[in-house]
Amino acid sequence: MKLYDYKMAPNPRRVRVFLAEKNITDLEVVNVDLGKAETRTPEFKKINPYLSVPVLELDSGEYISESMAICRYFEETHPENPLLGTDPESKARIEMWNRRVELALYLPIAYTFRHGNPFWAKVMKQSAEFAEISSEDVDKQLYMFNKHLDGKQYIASDEFSVADITLLCAIDFAKVIQKRVNSETHPNLAAWHERVSARASAKA
Amino acid sequence: MKLYDYKMAPNPRRVRVFLAEKNITDLEVVNVDLGKAETRTPEFKKINPYLSVPVLELDSGEYISESMAICRYFEETHPENPLLGTDPESKARIEMWNRRVELALYLPIAYTFRHGNPFWAKVMKQSAEFAEISSEDVDKQLYMFNKHLDGKQYIASDEFSVADITLLCAIDFAKVIQKRVNSETHPNLAAWHERVSARASAKA
Repeated sequence: MKLYDYKMAPNPRRVRVFLAEKNITDLEVVNVDLGKAETRTPEFKKINPYLSVPVLELDSGEYISESMAICRYFEETHPENPLLGTDPESKARIEMWNRRVELALYLPIAYTFRHGNPFWAKVMKQSAEFAEISSEDVDKQLYMFNKHLDGKQYIASDEFSVADITLLCAIDFAKVIQKRVNSETHPNLAAWHERVSARASAKA
Repeated sequence: MKLYDYKMAPNPRRVRVFLAEKNITDLEVVNVDLGKAETRTPEFKKINPYLSVPVLELDSGEYISESMAICRYFEETHPENPLLGTDPESKARIEMWNRRVELALYLPIAYTFRHGNPFWAKVMKQSAEFAEISSEDVDKQLYMFNKHLDGKQYIASDEFSVADITLLCAIDFAKVIQKRVNSETHPNLAAWHERVSARASAKA
């Protein structure tokens, strides 16, 4: 199996942290440099027509893209240290929180970056107006996630889960749009971030 | 168990089609009228702080929102007629295609509608410029999904899956932004749409 990866982007990091939590180390890693547009070649288009990393190449030759689809594959093949839940309720609760993080926070961070940073003007149509709306959404969501984490160890339950991985990667990614959490502005989120960042997997 | 539902919106329909495919009929259904802003009351905010339907109320009193989290719950409790895959590869492949439909097509349809239709001006900041960009994205994605479906029965594999449910609800939802598929413009997508719309579950 091969993992097509890029160290500087947030989505591949979600998979690397997931793999680190699972102690999965026997993967060939292929670096795809987004800065050099290496996902936009005809060769890469065959690997993923949506031109994104991460992508997992299975031994059958099939390609699996989308971070959560790759995580799902490894949760199934390596059920120890479960990160997607263990019963119908916890699986649903973790999926709910993971999606809330993705849709309500992670996407507005990405939109603020992509619609506001000149780097992306080369490959897509930008809307500065939408970047501004998205930036305001990020602020609202940081407030909501901070409120949710009051008295809680982890985002979806008492156990660390993939929803914490997504939130960790989202919060760290937010640096590119100059948003940071700290103990004065977002005390619960900052304490959670310190707790999750202290795990060995966070270095992945 | 109770399902908080709204007949006119696309996300609740995803869950209703899923339930119909599973032959699950023993649910109390509570209609929440989005047209009358019934998700924006203090009572509903306790059910789902993200103010959306569908929401599943479990017998424990816990609330599960996010369509896919609700589908995941029922896939776990009613594994017959699997819609999320049966082995690591098919689970990953279906999750990949479901997410491609959601992120690449469903979201741009929703953005075109929300940023372009006066109805939404009451509850959010709109960007007509972003509505226009999103509308162009929808056209590109209809082209890509039509191309992908060449020679295929279903979107993720030879079997009907949740990815087909998401695509069905997305395509039908696109009517609100005046986008339709037909046998001249998108022959593979139109044939797939006819095939999937003929299932009894599509009426849900």
